[in-house]
Amino acid sequence: MTETAPRIPPIRSVAPTEPADQLRWLVDRAQISDLLIEFARSLDERDWEVNLALYVPDGVFMLGDRLRVEGHEAMRANTVGDAGLDQYRGTWHLSANHAIEIAGDTARSRSYLMGVHRLDGDTYRHADGAGWYDCTLRRTPDGWRFVTVRIHEVWHGGERLPHA
Amino acid sequence: MTETAPRIPPIRSVAPTEPADQLRWLVDRAQISDLLIEFARSLDERDWEVNLALYVPDGVFMLGDRLRVEGHEAMRANTVGDAGLDQYRGTWHLSANHAIEIAGDTARSRSYLMGVHRLDGDTYRHADGAGWYDCTLRRTPDGWRFVTVRIHEVWHGGERLPHA
Amino acid sequence: MTETAPRIPPIRSVAPTEPADQLRWLVDRAQISDLLIEFARSLDERDWEVNLALYVPDGVFMLGDRLRVEGHEAMRANTVGDAGLDQYRGTWHLSANHAIEIAGDTARSRSYLMGVHRLDGDTYRHADGAGWYDCTLRRTPDGWRFVTVRIHEVWHGGERLPHA
Repeated sequence: MTETAPRIPPIRSVAPTEPADQLRWLVDRAQISDLLIEFARSLDERDWEVNLALYVPDGVFMLGDRLRVEGHEAMRANTVGDAGLDQYRGTWHLSANHAIEIAGDTARSRSYLMGVHRLDGDTYRHADGAGWYDCTLRRTPDGWRFVTVRIHEVWHGGERLPHA
Repeated sequence: MTETAPRIPPIRSVAPTEPADQLRWLVDRAQISDLLIEFARSLDERDWEVNLALYVPDGVFMLGDRLRVEGHEAMRANTVGDAGLDQYRGTWHLSANHAIEIAGDTARSRSYLMGVHRLDGDTYRHADGAGWYDCTLRRTPDGWRFVTVRIHEVWHGGERLPHA
Repeated sequence: MTETAPRIPPIRSVAPTEPADQLRWLVDRAQISDLLIEFARSLDERDWEVNLALYVPDGVFMLGDRLRVEGHEAMRANTVGDAGLDQYRGTWHLSANHAIEIAGDTARSRSYLMGVHRLDGDTYRHADGAGWYDCTLRRTPDGWRFVTVRIHEVWHGGERLPHA
């Protein structure tokens, strides 16, 4: 862990013992994993509105302690446009190590990411960043949604990241 | 998304509401994830015949719009031998971001890959390519099998890929 | 496959046919995946004691044929301190391609890893190694635990790994 990482209690994922609860637990886990993967896909296909809708309306995105963006409107300004992900020719967000803790209608997750951002038409020229997302989630009538998404960066590669 | 990516409708993964259907859905997802992972393993352990058997007999492999290989015989000629993956000293195919949509006995998936191809005995010398697979699948008496596998490349790293 | 890889029988993951068995199978898979992910997290957050507790007391860690460490005490000496992972400013262990085979109270798994080890405060300076883990597991009163963990390395990147 880098020296500046905040200490977040590790995810505690405990399977229930009753079959009906186990089934519910497995479906919840699957749906939260799907949400994490849809988060990556929507970034990589520039589906900005879909990406925003994965947060509750007052959701918060944090890039470590350096950036905090609250609410869909502010996120839209941050993500889209020349200063955000729109500037890249292509991105690729790997999503793995899904750790999920469910407590009724709320949940926490940690998932590892590796984000590759292409700068131009040369597929060998890209700026890479990797670490993990710490998220909190809430069950809504539309399914699980992000309340907070916080990136903890661990390493970089390739070119310098212009948008970070 | 790179400018040449075909627009494929995003995977819609909707959990059923009835317990029996949920269980079936979870098992199908697990089996399709296993197939994606076995696809990677069989490439990385050079189990060519096992890899081919993961496709239906008239299955199709596509590398973007640049390559289209149909049927086991043509795939065998394409994959094995000096022009294919056989030329590498070792490969490593990461498989992540499994998005799976099931409709009865057919399914669609998108999964992210990162393929690393070692050129010789130096483990630091390799040609890397990454992107995602868009697949269609069919349930057969032997389990889920690939009908089509299409690679969409996003970025490259390291040495130039000789086989692509 | 690199020329020195031992031939381990591929994971055979066969879903049961009875609903109660399917549910048990899905929960076991989820718990073993969680263990693999907790293994990575505990390394990356330097939770050495938590990491050791993921093995049975006489568990074995192997780095190919080059290193074999048996039991918590020996692992503690190997992992912690200036010669082990403690020397890095931060690590990041990707865990993916989880293949899991369950046989009652024992199991086998293969999972892909990519380990990135930062050497100092420069997030662009790191030593990377990747390959897969072959593990055997046992069900204990505390849950699934590792009996053996064996790393098969495929490729490296970045700086030389000082601890390997």
